[in-house]
Amino acid sequence: MLLDALLPDDAASASAADAWTLIEALYPLCRSLTGDGVRQTLDRIGERIPLIRTEVPSGTPAFDWEIPREWNLRDAWIADAEGRRAVDFRAHSLHVMGYSVPVRRTMTLEELQPHLHSLPDQPDWIPYRTSYYREQWGFCLRHRDRERLGPGPYEVVIDATLAPGHLSYAESVVPGQSTDEVLVYTHTCHPALANDNLSGIAVAVELARALHQAPTKPRLTWRFIFGPGTIGSLAWLSRNEERLGRVRAGLVLGLLGDPGVLHYKHSRRGDTLTDRAAAHVLRGTDARLLEFEPYGYDERQFCSPGFDLPMGRLTRSPNSTYPEYHTSADDLSLIRPAQLAKALQTLARLASVLDANRTPLNLSPKGEPRLGKRGLYGSVGGGAPGAFEHALLWVLNQADGTRNLLAIAERARLPFEQVEQAAAALEHAGLLRTLDRPHESEPKGPSP
Amino acid sequence: MLLDALLPDDAASASAADAWTLIEALYPLCRSLTGDGVRQTLDRIGERIPLIRTEVPSGTPAFDWEIPREWNLRDAWIADAEGRRAVDFRAHSLHVMGYSVPVRRTMTLEELQPHLHSLPDQPDWIPYRTSYYREQWGFCLRHRDRERLGPGPYEVVIDATLAPGHLSYAESVVPGQSTDEVLVYTHTCHPALANDNLSGIAVAVELARALHQAPTKPRLTWRFIFGPGTIGSLAWLSRNEERLGRVRAGLVLGLLGDPGVLHYKHSRRGDTLTDRAAAHVLRGTDARLLEFEPYGYDERQFCSPGFDLPMGRLTRSPNSTYPEYHTSADDLSLIRPAQLAKALQTLARLASVLDANRTPLNLSPKGEPRLGKRGLYGSVGGGAPGAFEHALLWVLNQADGTRNLLAIAERARLPFEQVEQAAAALEHAGLLRTLDRPHESEPKGPSP
Amino acid sequence: MLLDALLPDDAASASAADAWTLIEALYPLCRSLTGDGVRQTLDRIGERIPLIRTEVPSGTPAFDWEIPREWNLRDAWIADAEGRRAVDFRAHSLHVMGYSVPVRRTMTLEELQPHLHSLPDQPDWIPYRTSYYREQWGFCLRHRDRERLGPGPYEVVIDATLAPGHLSYAESVVPGQSTDEVLVYTHTCHPALANDNLSGIAVAVELARALHQAPTKPRLTWRFIFGPGTIGSLAWLSRNEERLGRVRAGLVLGLLGDPGVLHYKHSRRGDTLTDRAAAHVLRGTDARLLEFEPYGYDERQFCSPGFDLPMGRLTRSPNSTYPEYHTSADDLSLIRPAQLAKALQTLARLASVLDANRTPLNLSPKGEPRLGKRGLYGSVGGGAPGAFEHALLWVLNQADGTRNLLAIAERARLPFEQVEQAAAALEHAGLLRTLDRPHESEPKGPSP
Repeated sequence: MLLDALLPDDAASASAADAWTLIEALYPLCRSLTGDGVRQTLDRIGERIPLIRTEVPSGTPAFDWEIPREWNLRDAWIADAEGRRAVDFRAHSLHVMGYSVPVRRTMTLEELQPHLHSLPDQPDWIPYRTSYYREQWGFCLRHRDRERLGPGPYEVVIDATLAPGHLSYAESVVPGQSTDEVLVYTHTCHPALANDNLSGIAVAVELARALHQAPTKPRLTWRFIFGPGTIGSLAWLSRNEERLGRVRAGLVLGLLGDPGVLHYKHSRRGDTLTDRAAAHVLRGTDARLLEFEPYGYDERQFCSPGFDLPMGRLTRSPNSTYPEYHTSADDLSLIRPAQLAKALQTLARLASVLDANRTPLNLSPKGEPRLGKRGLYGSVGGGAPGAFEHALLWVLNQADGTRNLLAIAERARLPFEQVEQAAAALEHAGLLRTLDRPHESEPKGPSP
Repeated sequence: MLLDALLPDDAASASAADAWTLIEALYPLCRSLTGDGVRQTLDRIGERIPLIRTEVPSGTPAFDWEIPREWNLRDAWIADAEGRRAVDFRAHSLHVMGYSVPVRRTMTLEELQPHLHSLPDQPDWIPYRTSYYREQWGFCLRHRDRERLGPGPYEVVIDATLAPGHLSYAESVVPGQSTDEVLVYTHTCHPALANDNLSGIAVAVELARALHQAPTKPRLTWRFIFGPGTIGSLAWLSRNEERLGRVRAGLVLGLLGDPGVLHYKHSRRGDTLTDRAAAHVLRGTDARLLEFEPYGYDERQFCSPGFDLPMGRLTRSPNSTYPEYHTSADDLSLIRPAQLAKALQTLARLASVLDANRTPLNLSPKGEPRLGKRGLYGSVGGGAPGAFEHALLWVLNQADGTRNLLAIAERARLPFEQVEQAAAALEHAGLLRTLDRPHESEPKGPSP
Repeated sequence: MLLDALLPDDAASASAADAWTLIEALYPLCRSLTGDGVRQTLDRIGERIPLIRTEVPSGTPAFDWEIPREWNLRDAWIADAEGRRAVDFRAHSLHVMGYSVPVRRTMTLEELQPHLHSLPDQPDWIPYRTSYYREQWGFCLRHRDRERLGPGPYEVVIDATLAPGHLSYAESVVPGQSTDEVLVYTHTCHPALANDNLSGIAVAVELARALHQAPTKPRLTWRFIFGPGTIGSLAWLSRNEERLGRVRAGLVLGLLGDPGVLHYKHSRRGDTLTDRAAAHVLRGTDARLLEFEPYGYDERQFCSPGFDLPMGRLTRSPNSTYPEYHTSADDLSLIRPAQLAKALQTLARLASVLDANRTPLNLSPKGEPRLGKRGLYGSVGGGAPGAFEHALLWVLNQADGTRNLLAIAERARLPFEQVEQAAAALEHAGLLRTLDRPHESEPKGPSP
C-alpha cells in the first residue's frame, strides 16, 4: 500500500532520527500564537517539505474570535538591586507568561507576587502559562527559586511588543488522484516544550515527507497544517469553509515522543472513517482508544458542532495525564526516538488504510464467479481454501456497494491489507469495480 | 432546579411525615372501584392539594369496557346460630370480596365453602379478593379461623348495594409554562392495604403539593390522577384522548413505603424520556431497573399499543414479589417513614430532571466561542479546566439541536444538574437557546 | 403446531431409522456433479416423497458458470505388470478423482506420482478429490498403499466418459396456504461419504415426508431441492429467479449424523427470519450459533450478494472441522441414528416455528380488552396471572403490527409455542387478526 516504505523497523527508525534532529533544532526557538519564533519554526519545516505559508493580519475575524495582535519578546528579567537576574528569559523561554504585555518597573516582592506562577508540588519545574486574551503580564519560575526571593525591590522588565501584525501558519499539500482530502493538524505555538508540541510537528513532517516521496500518487489529497493552537485552526477553518465538504478523514497529532502508549481519541461522531481505521490499525497493540470529549487540542475546533469533521487525535500520553505536561520538564529528555519510530510506523499504517479504503462493487453478484478459470483459485477441489482465497470470497460476498473495504475487513476479521490485496486482484480480473473512485483531480503539477 | 426544596434529608423526612398521617387517615376507609369509600378518600386528598373531581355514570363505555355499577357495603358477617360473628366486616374491610352481590341466607358450612377464600400457607393473614365483573359473592378470612368453623348452619349476610351510580376519580393539575404534560397516576381502589395503595397515594400527594408550592412555575404541566385501577385509567383515557399527544413523560406510583429497594419499570417503548431520566437518576443507587412487561398496575393501560404513552412505574417491592402483597399483612406496620422519605427524594429529583430537560442549540457552533470574554472561563491558560468549564464545553459541543440535556449528561457522564447549570449559564450569555421551548400556556390563573 | 408429530422422542427415532435405511441404500452409488449415480440417488428419494425432476443440458449457462459435460465412470484401476490392481475403483468410489478424464496408459510410478493424492497424516484414509473444471485425471489412495507401490510400470485405466449430457436435480414441493416459500437445499454430489452428504439428504427426505403427511396444510409452501453442490444451486437459481422474491426463509442441510453438536450458521444478513427462528429454537440446547462466512456449502450461492436470500445452514460438525471430513473415514460408522433423530426433532421444531410465525394486530388496542368476559381470564381478581394469561397479555400488548410472534416471544422471553397458542386463542376470540396472512394459493391439487 501507499506507505509500505515506512513500515519496516529500520525505515521507521531512520525517519524517527530525522524527526529527532528537527526537534532539537526547534527546541530553542521562542514560539507563541504569533511572532518571529513561529516564522523561524516554519522556516525549518520548509527545509524538509514544500510549504504554502499564510500570514493573517491582526484583527481579522475568525468566527467568534479575531486574530490577536502579534507578540514578540526580546528579553525579560527580574533583577535585584545589584542587577543580578533572579529570573532570566534567556535561560528559559518558559519564564515569561505568553503574551505578557511590556513592563518596566521597580517593585517589591509583595507587589510582584500576583504576577508570579510556580508549582509548589514540583518545585524544580517551571510552569507554562499564557494570557492570550486578557492584557496582563507574568513570570513563571521554579517554586524553589520563588521561595528564595528577598523582599525586593526588584527591577522587572518584559521587553516585548504586542502590536498589530500577523498570525502565521503553513500547509503542505500532497495532491491525490482525488480532490477529497485528509487533514492533519499539529499545533506550533508552544515554546520550549518538547513532547508538546515538537514531537507532533516532527512526526507530521516525516509523514508528509514520506507521502511526497511515495512512488505512487495517493488516492486522496493529503493536507498538513502547521498552526497555533485554537486560533490557528479557527483561522484556517474560517478561510477554508468551502473546502470542508471534501474532508474524508483527519487527525490532530501531538505528544508522540513520550514513554506512554499510543492513544487514539475518537472524533465527535465516534464512527467516522478515521475512527474505524484507527480502531482497526490499533487492535491487538497496546494502544488505547479514548472516547471523544470536548477538551484537548485542535480537535475541539474541528469537531465543534458547526463543522463536525471526521477528525480524531493520535497522541501518546494525553494532555494533563503526565506530570511533566506544560512544564519545563517536558524537555528533550522526555522524547524517546524509539517512541517516535513506533508512532511513525503506526501512523503510516493508519494513513495507508485511510488512503486505500474504498467501496467495491461485485460485477458478478449472482452466485460466486468462477475464480478458477481466472487463475484465482486452486484447480483441485475438496480441500479448504487458503487465506488469500478466503479473502477473495469475503470481498466478493460483501461487495454489494454498501460496505467499504475496511468494513469488509472488520466483518471478516481479516487484516485490511489482506482484504485490499484481494480487492485489487478482483479489480484486475474485472470482477470488481470501485464505486467511490474519487473524482480525478487535475494532472499532478509541480509541487506547491 | 424545580424541586430542590424536597431534596435535603430533613425536608424529605418532614414531607414523609405528612404522607404518613394521610396514610393513617385513609387506612380505615372501605375503598373499591366505586362507592363512598373512594369519595371519602378523595375528600382527604382534597384537603391537601387542589382537586378537580369527576363522576362517571355507570354504563358509560370506556373502550372495550364500561363503567360498572356502584358498589357500597354497609355491613357483612357470618354468624353462628347464637349470633356470634365468626367473620365480621367491621373487624376488617378485607373480609368481604370486593363487589360481592348482596346476600342474606342461612347456610351450612358445606354450602358456604365455595364462597370462602383463605391462605393455607399464611393462616394468620386475610387475603384480598375481588370479583368486579362476574356477579358472585365471597368472604375472605384467616385460614386458621376457617378451620375452626363448625358445620353450621350460619347466617350469612352481605348488606351491600350494587346499583347504577358513578365511578369517582380526581385530578390535581399544576399548570406549567407549557401545556405539554407529565402524567402521574396512582390507584385508589384498594381497601385496607397500606403499602398497596396508600403509600402511592400519599407520595403522589406530597409531590403534587411540592409542585404547587414551588417558587417557580414548572416548564411542563403536571397532572396527578387519583382513580381506581384499570377501569379508572381506562375511564380517564377515554375522556382525554385528545390530550394524550401532549404527554411527554409519566409515572405510575405505588408500593413506595415497604422495606424493599426502589424499582423503576420501563415504559413499553423502553427508551422514552421517562425511562432515560429514571435510569440517570437511579444510577449509582441501590435501585433496580425492570424491563417492561404487560403485567402490573395502570401502566398496563397507558402502555397498551393504542396509546403507548411514555410512562414507567416507580415502586419499591413490585407487586406479587413480597409475601404481604394483597393480604391483611400489608398494614400500617409494613410502611417505613424513612422509606417514604427516600422515595420522595428520588421522585423529586426525577421530577426535576423531567421538567428541566430541554434541547439546547449552540448559537455559535463554528469552533468554540470565547468563553473567557464572557466571564465563563479562567483568564490564564495552560491549566486544566474545572468541572463547570468542562460542562460548558460538553454542552456547547453537543448542542447541535439533536440532543437534549439528559442525552448530553449521559454522553458526558456528568450529573444532569451540572449540565443543566452549564446550559443555563450559556443561555444567559446568549450562546445557547432552547429549541423546544414549549408553547407558552395561558397566564397562570387561580389554582383549580 | 405443524410438525408436532415429529417432536416426541419415539417418533423422531422411528423417522431417523427410516433415514438410516436410505443412507445405507445410497452409500454404494457413485455420485458426482452429474451422471447416472445422481439419477439413481434421485430414484431412491422418489420412492419416499413426490419429486419433480429436472435435467439441464450441458453447456447451459448459469450466471458466470455453465453446466459441465456429464461424467460417467464405469471402472478404473492401477494394475502392476501381473495385472494385480494396486488401486481399484470397485473397492471404493473415492479412488478416482471426480471428473477425471479417461485415460489408458502404461506409466512408471515416477510418471504416475503427480496424479496420485493421499494423506500422509492419515495414512489409512482415502481422500476425496475432484477436478470439475480443469481437464485432468487422478487417483486417490491410502498413503500406506501409496508408499508400497513399486517403480512400475503400471497399467493405468480410467474408463469414463465426459461428454455432453445433463445435470440432474429434483424438487419436492409441499403446497402451502400461501405461495410464499421456504427453501431447503441439500447437495447430492458426493460419492461414498456418509455424513457429508447422505445424512443431509436423508434428514431432508424425512422432513419433507412429514410435511407431505401433516394433517394440516402448511401456511407456507415448502420446497426441497436435491442437487449437486455449487453448480446445482446455481442451475436452480438461474431457472427460478422470478420465484426468489417469495422466499421467506430457508436452510441448507448437511452433515447431520456425526457425533458433534448442532451448528446453525447465520445467513448473510444475519438477522433474517431463519436466523431468528434458529436462535430461538436452539437457545438452551448445546447447539452453537456460527456467524455467516462465505465459505461452506450452497449457502455460498444463495447468500451471494445478487440474491442475499434469508437462508442459513444447519449441520452438526461444520465442514473441515472433523478429521474424517472428505475422506473415506466419513463412512456409515460415523453416522449415529440418535444424532439423526435429534437433528430431525430440532429441525421439526424450527420448521414449525418458521411456518407458524406471523404478524398479529390487536383489534382492541386501546387499553386491555376484557379477557374475562371472553372466557380467557380467571373471574376472581387479586391473584397473579398464570402462564397462559401472561402470554395473552404479551401478545395483546405487542401486537401493534410491527412485530411477528417470534419477536414477541423473544421480547417476552417465552417459548414461541406458548405465544403462538395465545395468539391463536386471541384470533379465535376476535381480538387479533394476522396482518401478513399470506395470499391464498390455489386449492391443493394432487401432489406433484
